[in-house]
This record gives sequence, structure tokens and C-alpha cells, in this order.
Amino acid sequence: MLLSPRLRAVIARRDRVARLGELCHALLAEHGEPSSAALAMEALAVYARLDDAGRAEFFDLLAREFAPDPDTVMRAIDAYRAAPNAGTLAALEHAVEPPRQELFRRLNMAPGGTATLVAIRGHILAVLKGRPDLEPVERDLAHLLRSWFNRGFITLQRIDWHTPAHVLEKLIRYEAVHEINGWDDLRRRLAADRRCFAFFHPSLPDEPLIFVEVALVKGLASSVQPLLDPAREVMVPERADTAIFYSISDCQPGLHGISFGNFLIKQVAAELESELRKVKTFATLSPVPGFRAWLDANLQEITLLEGGMKVAAWLEKNRGQAARRSVLPGDELREPLLQLCAHYLMRAQRKDQRPADPVARFHLRNGARLERINWAADTSPRGVSQSAGIMVNYLYELDEVERNHEAYVNEGRVTVSRRVETLARAVRWPQPASELAPAS
Amino acid sequence: MLLSPRLRAVIARRDRVARLGELCHALLAEHGEPSSAALAMEALAVYARLDDAGRAEFFDLLAREFAPDPDTVMRAIDAYRAAPNAGTLAALEHAVEPPRQELFRRLNMAPGGTATLVAIRGHILAVLKGRPDLEPVERDLAHLLRSWFNRGFITLQRIDWHTPAHVLEKLIRYEAVHEINGWDDLRRRLAADRRCFAFFHPSLPDEPLIFVEVALVKGLASSVQPLLDPAREVMVPERADTAIFYSISDCQPGLHGISFGNFLIKQVAAELESELRKVKTFATLSPVPGFRAWLDANLQEITLLEGGMKVAAWLEKNRGQAARRSVLPGDELREPLLQLCAHYLMRAQRKDQRPADPVARFHLRNGARLERINWAADTSPRGVSQSAGIMVNYLYELDEVERNHEAYVNEGRVTVSRRVETLARAVRWPQPASELAPAS
Amino acid sequence: MLLSPRLRAVIARRDRVARLGELCHALLAEHGEPSSAALAMEALAVYARLDDAGRAEFFDLLAREFAPDPDTVMRAIDAYRAAPNAGTLAALEHAVEPPRQELFRRLNMAPGGTATLVAIRGHILAVLKGRPDLEPVERDLAHLLRSWFNRGFITLQRIDWHTPAHVLEKLIRYEAVHEINGWDDLRRRLAADRRCFAFFHPSLPDEPLIFVEVALVKGLASSVQPLLDPAREVMVPERADTAIFYSISDCQPGLHGISFGNFLIKQVAAELESELRKVKTFATLSPVPGFRAWLDANLQEITLLEGGMKVAAWLEKNRGQAARRSVLPGDELREPLLQLCAHYLMRAQRKDQRPADPVARFHLRNGARLERINWAADTSPRGVSQSAGIMVNYLYELDEVERNHEAYVNEGRVTVSRRVETLARAVRWPQPASELAPAS
Amino acid sequence: MLLSPRLRAVIARRDRVARLGELCHALLAEHGEPSSAALAMEALAVYARLDDAGRAEFFDLLAREFAPDPDTVMRAIDAYRAAPNAGTLAALEHAVEPPRQELFRRLNMAPGGTATLVAIRGHILAVLKGRPDLEPVERDLAHLLRSWFNRGFITLQRIDWHTPAHVLEKLIRYEAVHEINGWDDLRRRLAADRRCFAFFHPSLPDEPLIFVEVALVKGLASSVQPLLDPAREVMVPERADTAIFYSISDCQPGLHGISFGNFLIKQVAAELESELRKVKTFATLSPVPGFRAWLDANLQEITLLEGGMKVAAWLEKNRGQAARRSVLPGDELREPLLQLCAHYLMRAQRKDQRPADPVARFHLRNGARLERINWAADTSPRGVSQSAGIMVNYLYELDEVERNHEAYVNEGRVTVSRRVETLARAVRWPQPASELAPAS
Ligand SMILES: [Mg+2]
Ligand SMILES: [Mg+2]
Repeated sequence: MLLSPRLRAVIARRDRVARLGELCHALLAEHGEPSSAALAMEALAVYARLDDAGRAEFFDLLAREFAPDPDTVMRAIDAYRAAPNAGTLAALEHAVEPPRQELFRRLNMAPGGTATLVAIRGHILAVLKGRPDLEPVERDLAHLLRSWFNRGFITLQRIDWHTPAHVLEKLIRYEAVHEINGWDDLRRRLAADRRCFAFFHPSLPDEPLIFVEVALVKGLASSVQPLLDPAREVMVPERADTAIFYSISDCQPGLHGISFGNFLIKQVAAELESELRKVKTFATLSPVPGFRAWLDANLQEITLLEGGMKVAAWLEKNRGQAARRSVLPGDELREPLLQLCAHYLMRAQRKDQRPADPVARFHLRNGARLERINWAADTSPRGVSQSAGIMVNYLYELDEVERNHEAYVNEGRVTVSRRVETLARAVRWPQPASELAPAS
Repeated sequence: MLLSPRLRAVIARRDRVARLGELCHALLAEHGEPSSAALAMEALAVYARLDDAGRAEFFDLLAREFAPDPDTVMRAIDAYRAAPNAGTLAALEHAVEPPRQELFRRLNMAPGGTATLVAIRGHILAVLKGRPDLEPVERDLAHLLRSWFNRGFITLQRIDWHTPAHVLEKLIRYEAVHEINGWDDLRRRLAADRRCFAFFHPSLPDEPLIFVEVALVKGLASSVQPLLDPAREVMVPERADTAIFYSISDCQPGLHGISFGNFLIKQVAAELESELRKVKTFATLSPVPGFRAWLDANLQEITLLEGGMKVAAWLEKNRGQAARRSVLPGDELREPLLQLCAHYLMRAQRKDQRPADPVARFHLRNGARLERINWAADTSPRGVSQSAGIMVNYLYELDEVERNHEAYVNEGRVTVSRRVETLARAVRWPQPASELAPAS
Repeated sequence: MLLSPRLRAVIARRDRVARLGELCHALLAEHGEPSSAALAMEALAVYARLDDAGRAEFFDLLAREFAPDPDTVMRAIDAYRAAPNAGTLAALEHAVEPPRQELFRRLNMAPGGTATLVAIRGHILAVLKGRPDLEPVERDLAHLLRSWFNRGFITLQRIDWHTPAHVLEKLIRYEAVHEINGWDDLRRRLAADRRCFAFFHPSLPDEPLIFVEVALVKGLASSVQPLLDPAREVMVPERADTAIFYSISDCQPGLHGISFGNFLIKQVAAELESELRKVKTFATLSPVPGFRAWLDANLQEITLLEGGMKVAAWLEKNRGQAARRSVLPGDELREPLLQLCAHYLMRAQRKDQRPADPVARFHLRNGARLERINWAADTSPRGVSQSAGIMVNYLYELDEVERNHEAYVNEGRVTVSRRVETLARAVRWPQPASELAPAS
Repeated sequence: MLLSPRLRAVIARRDRVARLGELCHALLAEHGEPSSAALAMEALAVYARLDDAGRAEFFDLLAREFAPDPDTVMRAIDAYRAAPNAGTLAALEHAVEPPRQELFRRLNMAPGGTATLVAIRGHILAVLKGRPDLEPVERDLAHLLRSWFNRGFITLQRIDWHTPAHVLEKLIRYEAVHEINGWDDLRRRLAADRRCFAFFHPSLPDEPLIFVEVALVKGLASSVQPLLDPAREVMVPERADTAIFYSISDCQPGLHGISFGNFLIKQVAAELESELRKVKTFATLSPVPGFRAWLDANLQEITLLEGGMKVAAWLEKNRGQAARRSVLPGDELREPLLQLCAHYLMRAQRKDQRPADPVARFHLRNGARLERINWAADTSPRGVSQSAGIMVNYLYELDEVERNHEAYVNEGRVTVSRRVETLARAVRWPQPASELAPAS
């Protein structure tokens, strides 16, 4: 009897998942190591050949077959309750540790193991919304990866035109903020008045974890298009007094939430300070990605504000399709929109009382100061449709960063410049700033 | 009022331990990371200045103040028992994880963190016998270090005369089996007919974890003194057909029990096989460190054996002081001692039914075959007093290793050559081989 | 009085050349070295700012002011004639060595000196045709660079996608045979079934001197378009039995005539042989760049040959504009053109009795064998207009290369396969093959 | 008939030299390169097996058979005299260049060629005194090596305890001034308050050309024994304000006279200045190796000086055997000997009117200032017997070095501190300072 191709695919997938399950159980059962590496290697190879459906089945298996055994847990609980001591506690700890943690550690013995585990977490995160049963699996991976990608194991490397091509092509692929248009554009971004740094882990030597792009300029940059202009002249770096962090991109979806960005900015600032003695100012030029959506969601309140009518009119008019949303607001909206943006950044909050804007949250938590709000600073379609064309300079004053961070974490206080404060004060909001569900 | 120096020292120590405790608590309390690295750095610096007594106090503190909180554990248990689900299980898992695990991970953020954590475990192991209360602390460190020193993170490096001096001096320091007498001796051990390989971890780039010394020879080497002779001629390595692993040394007391040796031998064998196509035989020349003690402990039984009287006489005569114990047995004892040694290696067992001899356990578990037992093979004082001058070749037959390992682990079967088997058979032991507590 | 911009430029140039002349004289006059490096550095900086006219003036100066002094030469001649001995000979040798040789050596002390000297020779070669007075200067530079770029100082490096971008971009720039269309094309040429190697000199670490591109294939490749096709599938290199050298490009015009190509091919073949044990055949796929011009120049004789009429007709028809010249000949011309090509390669000679075709000269001198002539092998416009679409496999039989080379150099004998010989024999040329001035 | 071993050795040597001669001629006759490398390689191998007598014969051969051909020279002379133009001059230049120059360049093509050519020059220099006929050969090698070891090709590398052992052992071997007593002594000399730098050539990556040892100290060091004391405490380098160059050693006898030392000191000073911002003073602590011999040679004049009698008495008494000569002079001789030393360094001259003392010549020519003369500064036997225990600080004032150098080279002026000047003035020498043939 002939099987249909579809059926054959289903069977092949089943076979693979079954084989993978066997390999994982065998790997976990190993008492000595001679065959572990071989088992791990085959397991990785089988995983690499799974399609989405196959992966989903494998994740199921991880969730079900490699979880703590309820009976063992209960027995360990009983023993601990009967005699709570170091021994019974250790036994309890062991009983509740999901066996897949050890499984993951053993998979790591094969070449490429770390990369595959990072990929697995990425694949799980991609489907997690619809699969709450995979949360424990994701949590175990996150726990492990957080331990392995500890700050102490990560190294900072400068990226420039002398960097191997296989790393550079990843910058092109991963740049998340301001797209890199091929190798010539990349080259311009690595010119003498630019800097680029990335974090690397020794087990992923070819894969940047996160990278930041910096422009060396004179004075605080107030708009991004001139920075990105491939035709602009290259400046002698010794003339710069300011380093503008204009793009930070995470490269590994599988390391989402295992934060490196905060370390990166501070370490790069320290690096630049010692390389270029005249550079004294370290600041970002950042989008305000939640601003436009917040404006749309608060149309009514805005109408009630002094000068709010024309903002509301503009919002209404440019709602809807992408083409519309990316029309730059006219200069008559400059004041009210800058004020509203200051208000949004300082006062619009999530349920947890942190700033509604995700970029603001990131930099303010890091200890930066909200220094300046720039009009017509990103005129690209994305810049207008998300941030109304506005960009923000977050200032990293190195000897103030820790104090700001503490104030933010402990008291929820946001550090802003007087100028931004003044802008925000001009907004007399009818009621407490509405909450906005965070975009991401 | 003037304090005595001793009193001042006590106070200084108290201050340091107190400060270290504060730093650890602060580090654990950190919500964001800006100050974490600074706290970790200071903590490491304070630890570095502690003396033994100070360390002991700090270990106390780790045991008491950074253990799971019993109330929280009990509440998590109750919640789980009330509703055993993924959420309550995760909460229980979190409740029983000792906070010091996270503390250790955070200490690792400072430069040199990994090295210090390895050192701390070494210091704890050194006092553990008298301090059972530190066992949970040691276990946490072992758990963490086993995860961080996962096989996947470790790299094999060849060591030779082109290796930096600061690494080479560590070989001199750590060589555990056959002492290296200074740089000239070392140089000879790195000559063209020798190989040396070590495992390294990226966070300890200057510190070999374990290294193995190999002699390239013709035929299975049957005694070690010629191998170590600094005056022997250097052979062209292309003429060799056999690689003799004559010394394996662990370098990091703080990584005790986090096994790398098994990987090392097999990876080095693979490396040599591809470098030197004519080398087909991979074997050790190993001591039998428990043999003499076992002989002494079984004097009575030995007396009952055919030919056992003269062995017993020799044992009695050379008991006691070091000088006596290191007198090489005469050739008339050759047969009975070789037979007894075969018997000892194959049949003398620990309580867990594994071979009594620790070196035998290591290689047999790795999948090696007990190939040959060599008479008058190590005539050094240590060689005679521990192994009666006998050394053993364990043979690593690469395509047989895994099968042997499985047989050993699953059935407790020891793979031996026919020749060794014949030797052992000659011994008609009056009763089951006595057990001997392992030396190390 | 105001000067015109043109006049000001002339004056600035004069000033620069004058300053450069002073610096060179001062550098040569230096007895000790403390200031030499500084003088050399300034001289390089001034040279870098010269335009073409300024360079021409500087070359004049090198020719006139840094040549041997005729009076000194004559005196040294007289002394030698009076008493020909080691002393007077050494003095004569010294008198005839142009001082600019020492000047060049001293310029080399500044950072970037070697690169500038290579550039200077390139600049001189570019104008040499019209400036026979610069020949001695060029010869001195060639003498020096030949000594410095001695084979013993040059290293072979593999180029692949892990190579730094600043080196890779030079491949794109310098590829002389089959243009590289940007980074994606380059990437394809560095895939797993391709190899690329370059020679480097330690003083020009960022500059390949020459590079060769190799395709790993099964069987002797007979046409180049499939090799260059960016869409072709990548083959597992272990399956290859043949390495095709399909492009060799010189990168440094200033090193013209300082031959490395012959070394390169042989060293790369040796490299590949040891990397890929199954690759047994090393051959080129080369153009016949002088073939079409030779055909055109021998139209009359061709008409007289058997079957020559249709060849002549095709040549006449497709003469002239580029578009015409690049029309591929029809298959009815296959036999006569292949025969004529064999005849051309084997018998058409320059005045020095070496093969007329420059590519043939290069490979035959290297000891390769003219193995196969391929029809419709390069269908690109250049391929057709220069080589009538034909390409040749020169075979590097490693243990025959030296014998072939000797035969070629000493007896002018060209080694060809039987197949090619047969093709050539079919041509009954009316008279000795005409000579053709070499194209390049 | 049996040959005596001696006779057989003679014949073997003859055979080798004859073979080497053939190889050299063949190498020079090569028109293409395929076999050149093989010929060069064999030639190097044969040379390596020659004993002293064999080498001498080979040097003969180089002098006779690879010199310019007198007839060719004479014909080129005639042609030039008949028509002195660029062409005949080039021909003459070519005729007088000894063919061995090209031979040496071709020998360099084989691996290890450069090292062998350096060795050959060393071997020739060692016998040159008795072999004036080898002078042209030596001169050709010197010409070539000076060109190849051009400053532009040489790199500075820091040497420390992270340097590979095979380089470090060469420091022990080559240290010429203050012997290194094994690895522990070496290690101390590479501690945190020491620096060591060496020049390397890319073709001799394992061989330092010259190295300098530096002590970081507070204030100008006035005696060398404390610097060398292995038991002294290591100072934090940040506390140092002065860098003392206490030893410079040439490593390659074959590069004698191809000066690097002057570059080395200045480059190391620049390096240290940028590493350690607080180090402002760069000075040597140098012996006065010709002083004692000069004293002995000028006994009569010294007697005539004020206070000269007791100096003369001491000289007479401690003349002769080594043991005597190394008795440190008593403090009552301090003033007169310091004065005489100042006089000697400033006024005692060679025939060429340069300072008689070789170390003084080296540093003064480099642009250093004779800063201070230290009493009882080197109490070692060598220090006393050569320098009467005196050592000198030559000061490298970086912005004065060039001026001093010019003054020295052009006017023969020696730059000294006021203090040294005053010492010298106290000596009223009866007649112009006697000349002393330089020791080395
Ligand atoms: Mg854990
Ligand atoms: Mg020359």
C-alpha cells in the first residue's frame, strides 16, 4: 500500500520525535560519560531536522516526561515535614528540580549544544502565548541560560571593518532599530567617526548577543537621519565631544529577557571615555515607540487640553493606513506634541507604576536622565507612525547613573532635565494618565 | 586603651566578615544591575583578605543566612499540597533553592569571580570533614560549578615549549603523579616525542583544569623510569606506534569531583590518532596505589595461598617506616605478586562492588581494558611503598571503549586481557576478596 | 596681488616637491637614526599629498638628483683599472649604486613606508612608457621590492567568510578575471565547495598580493559559467576529486613583474592535497586571451586551411564592435576552432620562441600540461571576444611539474595531452605560425 | 682498502662542500622558480651538516666562485667609458654586483633561509680576523641583512611571564650584561615593577633580535645590586617615577653592526610613557667598561695629578689576577676616582675623536645626556675589574635627544650634566687625554 506524501511526512515526524525522546531518556540515564556526548550529538541532529509540528511534539514531551515526578515530590515533602533538616531539604530540592534541567546540561556537551539550547528557547517563546503548559519548560531554559550567560562569562568586543565578514553579516541581519541597507551602508556605520560594540559568549563565538551603534559627534544629536546619511562626511574622531548611542539590537531571540543591554551601554561608555579623552557626553537618540498609540488611545482627554484640538484633529486625520500615519505633523503642532510627549514619558504608567514607554523604562531603569525631546527627529515612516517623528536623548551621566537607578527602582522616581520638566508641566491633564498595556 | 595585636586581628577579622555579609545581602537584594558588579567586586576583595578563621566564619554565614527560609518552604509545601499544579510546584522549587545559589551567580559578575568561587569550594572541601553543616554550601557550589564547567564550555589545548611560561609553571606545581624537577625536566617532558594536553575554561584562561602527559614510544611501555629519564634520547615522533598516558593531574582542588579526566583521555587519543597516523595503541602506564595496603590488610589470607608464605614474609619484613617500605621486592616474588595484583585489581571490591583500587576504577569505568601488569615498573620509593613497584597498562581500544564502559556500569564487569585473567586465576583465594575502604 | 587658484595650485605643488626633495636629501645625509624616522614620516606625508603633476616632478628629481655621480663613478673606474682588487671593486660597486636605493630603504623606516614604496613603483610604471628617463628609478625600486618581497618573507593565508571585511573587499576590487558582483557573489565564492588563498607580506598585512580562487568539483570542469552561477547548489567538499583554479588575480600594480603566481598555485595545490585527501586532480580553467586576435591577424592563412573558409567567414562577420565580437560561434565551427586553438597554443610564438598566448606561457613555464581545450566554455562577452568562448584546462600533475618546467625552460618544449596533440596535428599550416606581439 | 676515520671525515666534508657548491650554482642558474625552493632547501640542509672546516671551505667558494667576473667588469667599464649613459651605467652596476647577493636572496626562499643567512654571517664574522679574503662576502651579507632587517620590518614586543617559554629561554641564554640565574631569577625580572621589550623580525618569530630590561623605580637608581636582588619586594608600578634601562643585550651575532639598540631605547621609552603616565625620567644604569683599563694605561699621568698618588697606589696594588682586580676601592678613593671617571668619559678619545668608552659612545650618539656617575654601584667582580665599581646614568630626555644627537654627530659635542662637568673640571690633566684603542 502506498502512503500519501503528507502521511509519510507525519510518520517521519513521529519517528523523529520518538527517537529524540528515546535519546533524551538515554542521555539522562547515563551514569558515565563516554556515550553521553554521542547521544547528545545525535539528539541535536534529530532536533535540527524537526519542523514546527515536530518541535511542538517534542516540547510536549519535555513538559510531560521530564517534569518532576509528583509521587517523589510528595514523598520528599512528607519526609521533610516529618523531620525538617538539611538532608530532607536537599532531598526535597532534588525532587522538585525538573529532570529536564539536567537533560539540557547534558545536551550541552555536544558541539553546538549551547546554540541549540538557545534556539530551543527561542522556538518555545515563539509559541508560548498559546501554550501555557510550556511555561515550566521555558522557565527551566531561562534559568539555565541566565546562569550560563552570566555577565562574568561575556566579553565585549569592538566591531569594525576589520571584523570577520560572518560576524558583520549578522549586524545587517539583526539591526532592529534603523535597518542597514547592505554592505556599503554597514561600512559607513563602521567608519572612523562611528563605533560599534557587541557582547559575545565563548560558546557562541560567531554570534553577537547584542550590539550597540554609536556616532561620535559634536553636541547632542537631535535627529537621526543625518547620522544615518551614507553621504555625510567622516569626521576625525578626535574632534568629537559626544557619543550618541543611536541603536541597540538584541540578536538572539532565545536569550530574550536575559538582559545585557544595561551592562553594554555602561561598559561601552567606559571604553569610549578611555579611548577618546575629549568625549564627555554619553547619550542616546531613542524612539518613543508607544507615543502615537498612547495619543490615539487618549484622544478625548487631549481634546480637553489647551491647544489639544489641533492635535486631536491631526490624529483623527492621519489615523488608519500606514501611508497616512507616516505623514509628518506640521510645525504648528510642535509645542503641544512636545509637551504631550514629555507628559507621556514622565506620567503615563503601566499597572506596575512604571513608565508606559518601553524604551523609557529601559533607559530610566539603567539610571539615565531624560534629557531632551527632539522635534522632527526621525522622519522615516516608522519614526512618524510610532513616535510622531519625535526622538529623545537619554543622558548617561556616569557619576549619576547609580543614584538615578536607585531612585527609579526604590521610589519609582524618573530623573528628567529641567527643560523636559517644564514641557510636562504645561500639560494639565484632566485625570491621572491612563494606563496603556505595554506593546511588547 | 591599647588593644593587643591578637585582639586587633580578631576585631579586624570580625569587621571583614561582617562587611562581607553585608555586601552579600546587598548584592542579593539588588533589583537592577548597575551596582551589582561593584558590590561583587568589593565582596571578592574582602574575601581575598580573609584568613582561615575569617573564612570559616564566612562559611557559617553562607550556611545560616543564605539557606532557604523554613517558613517560606513550609508555606510553599502547604500551597502545593492544597493544589498541586505547575504554579505551586514552581513556587516550591523557588522556595527550596538556597538563595546562596543566586548569590554565587551574582558574585561571578565581577572580574575573577569564577576563580574565586572555585577557590571558595576548595577552601570548604579542605575543612568539610569536620564541618558537616557546610555540606549544603558545598553542594550548592558543586551544583553551580558542574553546570558552568559543563563539557561543552571546556576546550582542549596542547601544551608545549611554545606555551606561555605562566601556564607551564602550573604544570610543575600541579603534577601529582611523577614530580617535575624544575624547568629542564619540564622541557624534556615537552620534547618532540612527548605530548601534553590540558583542558581550559574560558573564564580561567591561565589555569589548566587537568592535564595529561603522553610519551610516544614503540611498543607498550612496561616501566616508567626510562620514560622520565631526562637523559634519554628524543625519538622522531613519526617512528612511534604507541601513546602512553603516564600521568594525569587535576589542577583545581575547587573542582574536585567535577570529572574531566574521562573526556580528556578519549579526546587526546582522538587528537593523537589524527596527528600521528601510525600510532595505533593508546594505553596508560598507571600505578596500583591501593595494592600494598591491601596486601598488608590481607596478610592472613595470603599466607594460606600457594606460594603465599614468602610474600607474607616480605610484607612483614618491610612493614613500617618509609625506608623499609620502599625496598623493591626480589625477583623470586615476581610470580606471586603479579598474580596477587591481578587478583586485587579484578576481585577486590569496595562496598559498592566496584574495584577497590581507585585508579582501576577510573580507567575501567572509562571503558579501558586491564591489559598488562608490569613487574619492577616503578622503582621510586612511592612506587614501591604503594604499588610494590608494579604498574599497569590500561588499554584504550577506541572502538571497544563504549562497550566496556557499558558492561562496567551496568553489570559491574571488568574487561581484562587473557594474560591478566590467567594471572588472576592462579590465585585461589580462601574467601571473597576483602573490601578495602578507598584511599582517597 | 591676488593669485589665480590655478597659479596657487602650481605654487603649492612646487613647494611640496621642493620640500620633499629637501627631506630626501636630509634623510640620506643622516648619520645616526634618531631623526631618520621623523624625516621619513614627513616625506611620506608630503608624497601622499602630491597630485600626478607633483609626482612627475618628484620622479624627475629621483632620476636626476639621486643617481650615481658621474665623476665619482669615473674616479672609481680609474682606481679599479689602476689596481683591480677587492677594495677598488667594492669602491666601484658603491660608486655605481644609485643613492636612491639607500633613500628608499630609509623611507621604509616610517610606518606605511613599504606600502608607499610599492605605490610609488605603481605610479612610475603607469607613466613609464612616455618617460624612458624614469627607467633607472623603476629598476631600483624593482630591485629593492624583489629583495623585500622574497618568497621567504611571504605567507599563504586562506581566505573565507571568516576573513576580515577589509581584506574581502579587496578581493571584490582586485578580481581581474571573472568580476565579483558584490558581497553576495563573493560569499558564494567562499562557500564550502570553494577555496580561496592569498599571499601576504608582513608589512602589508591588510593587502593581499595575489589571490587564487578554486572550485572543488567532480571531474575536470569544462565551462566556467556553472562554476560562477550564484544559484548553484553547494557540494560537500569531501565529494570532490578535482580542484579547479578558475581565477588568479594580482592585487598590487606596484609589484608587477615580481612574480608570485607560480609559487601560489603549487603551494595551494599542496595545501588542498593535505586537506582533502580525495582530491587528486589540480587543474586550471583558463582563458585563451590572445586567440581571437591571433585568428583575426591570420585570416588569410586560415582561409587556406581545410574547413578554414567557414571560420574566416565567421571572423569577418563578427569583426568590429563589441556587440558583434561577443556572438558565440555556432557548433559547426567547433572542430575547426578547437583545432586552430590547439595549433595557436602549441605553435604560435613570440620572437623569443615562447608561446604567443600569455596565459599559456605562464602555466607552461610553471610546469603545467596543456590538457584539454573546451568548447563554449566561457560564453560571457569577454570570453567570446577574446577567446572565441574557448577555455583551457592546464593540468598541474604534481610529480611531473618540475620535469615539464625544465623541458620548457631549457628546450622550449610544451607538454600537451595526446588529445590536444591530435587536435593540433589536424591543422596543416601553410607556413610557420606567425608571431604576435603579446597583448599585455 | 680501509680508510681511517679521519680520512673518511675529510672526504665526507669535501663531498658536502662540493655538493653545496653545485647546489648554489644550480640555484643561481635557475630561470624559473619551481625547483629553486627545492635546491635552496637542500643547500640549507647540507650547510647545516658542515663542521668548521667545511664551512671555511664553503666560504672560500663564496669568495672565489660567486664574485663579479673581472672580464665582465672590465668590458662593462669600457662600454661605460665609451658611452656613459643610463644603459651602460646599469650594465656596469649589474656587472659589479657580486652574484652571491642573488644567491643569498635565492637561499632565502627555503623555510629557515633567513635564519641560516644570519647564522652564516655570524660564522664568517667569527673567523674574519684571520681571513681578510672573506671581507667582501661578509659585506654582501651585511648589505642584504641591513636591507631585510630594515627598521620598517621590525616589531617591538613586550616580554613578560605570559611569553612562550621558548622565547624566554633565549633571554636567559643571551643576557650579556647581568647574567640571569635560571627561571626563578628570570621570573623576578619580569615581575610587575619590571619591563622587558624585544625587537622581532617576522622571519625569525622565535628569536628576539635584541632586548632591554627595565626597572621601574622611584628616583634615579644609583647601584645595580638592589635592582637585581631576587629577594627585593615588588613595587606597584603606578608608584614609579623613573624607568631604569639596566641591561641591553644583542641576541644575534650574525646581525652584529646592524644597529637596533638606538631605536629600541627610544621606542620603549615612548611605550612606557604612554602606559605609565607618572614615569617621567628615562635613564640607564650603565657600566664604564673601559675605565679600569684606561686607568692602568695612564698610571704615570695619574701620579702627577692632585690626589693621584693614592689612586695610582691602589691600581698598582690590585693589578694582575682576577681576584685582586675585583677588590672594591675604599671610600677614600671616591672623589679622585669619580673625577677621573668623568674626565675619562668626557675627554678620553679614540683616534676618530669619539669617546674612548664604547658604552658612552653608544648612548651619547643616541642623544642621551651623561647625567650622573655613581660610586660603588656595581660591586660584582666584573663591575670592579672593568669599571672600578662605578656605574653611570645616561639620561634620555625625550625632547632633547635629537638636539644632543645632532650636536654629537656634527660637532662631536658630548652633553653632560653640570654635576659631571664639575667633576671633570677638577682633573687637570697634564696633556691631552691619551687615546685608547677601543676594547671591542
Ligand atoms: Mg539550578
Ligand atoms: Mg643591492
